[in-house]
Amino acid sequence: MRAGPFADALAALRPADAEAARLALARQDRLTKPAGALGRLEALSAQLAAVAGTCPPPVPVRPAVAVFAGDHGVLAEGVSPWPQEVTAQMVANFLAGGAAINVLAREVGAFVVVVDVGVATPVPAGPGGHDVPAGEGLRLVKSNVRLGTGNIAVEPAMTGDEALAALDAGARLAAELVGEGADLLVTGDMGIGNTTPSAAIVAALTGRAAREVTGRGTGISDEVFELKVGVIERALLRAEAAAAAGAAAGAAAGAAAATPSGITAAGTTPLAVLAELGGLEIAALAGYVVGGAAARLPVVVDGVIALAACLVAAALAPDVVGYLVAGHRSTEPGATAALESLRIEPLLDLGLRLGEGTGACLAVPLVRGAARLLSEMASFDAAGVSTLES
Amino acid sequence: MRAGPFADALAALRPADAEAARLALARQDRLTKPAGALGRLEALSAQLAAVAGTCPPPVPVRPAVAVFAGDHGVLAEGVSPWPQEVTAQMVANFLAGGAAINVLAREVGAFVVVVDVGVATPVPAGPGGHDVPAGEGLRLVKSNVRLGTGNIAVEPAMTGDEALAALDAGARLAAELVGEGADLLVTGDMGIGNTTPSAAIVAALTGRAAREVTGRGTGISDEVFELKVGVIERALLRAEAAAAAGAAAGAAAGAAAATPSGITAAGTTPLAVLAELGGLEIAALAGYVVGGAAARLPVVVDGVIALAACLVAAALAPDVVGYLVAGHRSTEPGATAALESLRIEPLLDLGLRLGEGTGACLAVPLVRGAARLLSEMASFDAAGVSTLES
Repeated sequence: MRAGPFADALAALRPADAEAARLALARQDRLTKPAGALGRLEALSAQLAAVAGTCPPPVPVRPAVAVFAGDHGVLAEGVSPWPQEVTAQMVANFLAGGAAINVLAREVGAFVVVVDVGVATPVPAGPGGHDVPAGEGLRLVKSNVRLGTGNIAVEPAMTGDEALAALDAGARLAAELVGEGADLLVTGDMGIGNTTPSAAIVAALTGRAAREVTGRGTGISDEVFELKVGVIERALLRAEAAAAAGAAAGAAAGAAAATPSGITAAGTTPLAVLAELGGLEIAALAGYVVGGAAARLPVVVDGVIALAACLVAAALAPDVVGYLVAGHRSTEPGATAALESLRIEPLLDLGLRLGEGTGACLAVPLVRGAARLLSEMASFDAAGVSTLES
Repeated sequence: MRAGPFADALAALRPADAEAARLALARQDRLTKPAGALGRLEALSAQLAAVAGTCPPPVPVRPAVAVFAGDHGVLAEGVSPWPQEVTAQMVANFLAGGAAINVLAREVGAFVVVVDVGVATPVPAGPGGHDVPAGEGLRLVKSNVRLGTGNIAVEPAMTGDEALAALDAGARLAAELVGEGADLLVTGDMGIGNTTPSAAIVAALTGRAAREVTGRGTGISDEVFELKVGVIERALLRAEAAAAAGAAAGAAAGAAAATPSGITAAGTTPLAVLAELGGLEIAALAGYVVGGAAARLPVVVDGVIALAACLVAAALAPDVVGYLVAGHRSTEPGATAALESLRIEPLLDLGLRLGEGTGACLAVPLVRGAARLLSEMASFDAAGVSTLES
């Protein structure tokens, strides 16, 4: 791995602290409630202790949502009914504060950063031809690696260098946000067509068939769904052939990676999967997730795009999984496949399929609430409440 | 129904506004996201419009949690391992701000009111023998109807007059909270042993067998579980016999009630079920729910205790159901039975079984978020975002 923010994050990453988790569960049993009565929140509070390496863990007060935006050459295959310009138009909408993620971030007290890591068309100017003025607390980070990926049905999404540049962009942003006081990271994404590369990556890294992990994205017909499955199958075959050729030529991509059993094509590294099947925003999200974990922050993960990135991150650095909180179960089947592969259970299941980070953002009060319970609840002793009659 | 706050609320109750819901769904389709991509939040936003009778609905800014506390004579049967004094001790804990509901209410920006509607033992004094000083924004409402219910295995929980007094206490509090600016009501409860009367009411009003709706409450052994099922079966037989005797004597309780098909014993009115099987906090919660609905506020409902109250309320006034938002699915089987009977789907499913209003409170950001999306998201037109290519 070449030097840079992503390599730094990988080097800094440590396993979550099992002892802190044990202390948290012991503490839960002394709080004024029946043991176990807070259900999933008790396990979540223990995870937050493990993430922070201390019990009780700090209560997140400054959650950040990073919305990574990129375009996808595979759109040329007709996998989505939405025009490519919508990615850039939505970036403008994020900066103006009018998108769903803006509304939900305001609701949960998070701030939003928009990252152009691979948008293909210009972000529309605001009134008077100026850049769209960013709303209060909103900003655009310009980290464009290239103007959208290649069409993965026929060519690599990006080069290995471009993948590393996008990983660096994500890890760099995580470090910057931590420097600004962010204490919880939320994943967000925007990119017309991006459920296609996400499903391809999930298939490649979990060993599932394309059809099993392909979903309806923003809402497509049966006909387009069949086309999409075929496109993903072609992309997977192409990537596998490229990996075999690369391995034969002794030219496998960099990282001395941990390759979990899920990776189908022998010799394929997670970085090669990422470069072949792509998504610049997916690569940046993988960097962001590792960056957050390296800083010992909880990373609340959204849907299938973020989960594809988490599979890449976990394949490179399995310790990252201890830092992930799955915000919700998206309706995309690839999301469920990735959750199962990562062995993490989502907090919410509300039928969302929007992306942007919306499902993850909605879970922030649950995460903060779990931390607060551990910090703020009275113990039986302190409150003078009788315990169980034995 | 005798005159009073509960009768007033029943008289004021109107059906939720289907036209406002329709407008909300049409508005959702113009917002900058694929149609339907916000899943359950879109339906929730439409319900909130129906509740308020206007689209977009107001965004709740002052949610109130009322924790109704009462004791249960049936504790004498050994249905819970916790001593009865814990109810009063937890009231003190609520007032000191140290319980789970206090922590979660702070997290979601709600204020907490504790209502003694039937606590059997004195609330412990604070240091120096004084009343426990209530924490900031916390207060105790003294509406004690009687010092705990009768033992429902052998006698009625309360008289019809006492049931009405508790219903009035709940409806009165709802009206007071509305007067103070509360714009969303959350149900809360405390009462050692209260899953027993709740399960009994759920069985009586849904026609399910006691065993199907009985749960482990705060956590009981297999042996105590069998005892609890037996106690509930005895209570149901006794209540049925009392209803038959009452009907024969022409002495059926007041209300000219709508009696849904779920009510098993012919001639049993919802009020008779409530008085026989009781729970003073359950009765007060039924009044509170109807009071909130009458004021056209969304009422976010917690677990099996609140849902038993909602079954009573819905049996008396079916229009109340349109105002209910099920915050979560408790692990108590009676909760799921009640949710199915009321035909409402919970928002969260986190394995909670604490009560106090904790699961409902955790859903408040989802409710507020759903309302905000409808109010604050940009439309395709306004944001200059392209719509679907046709």
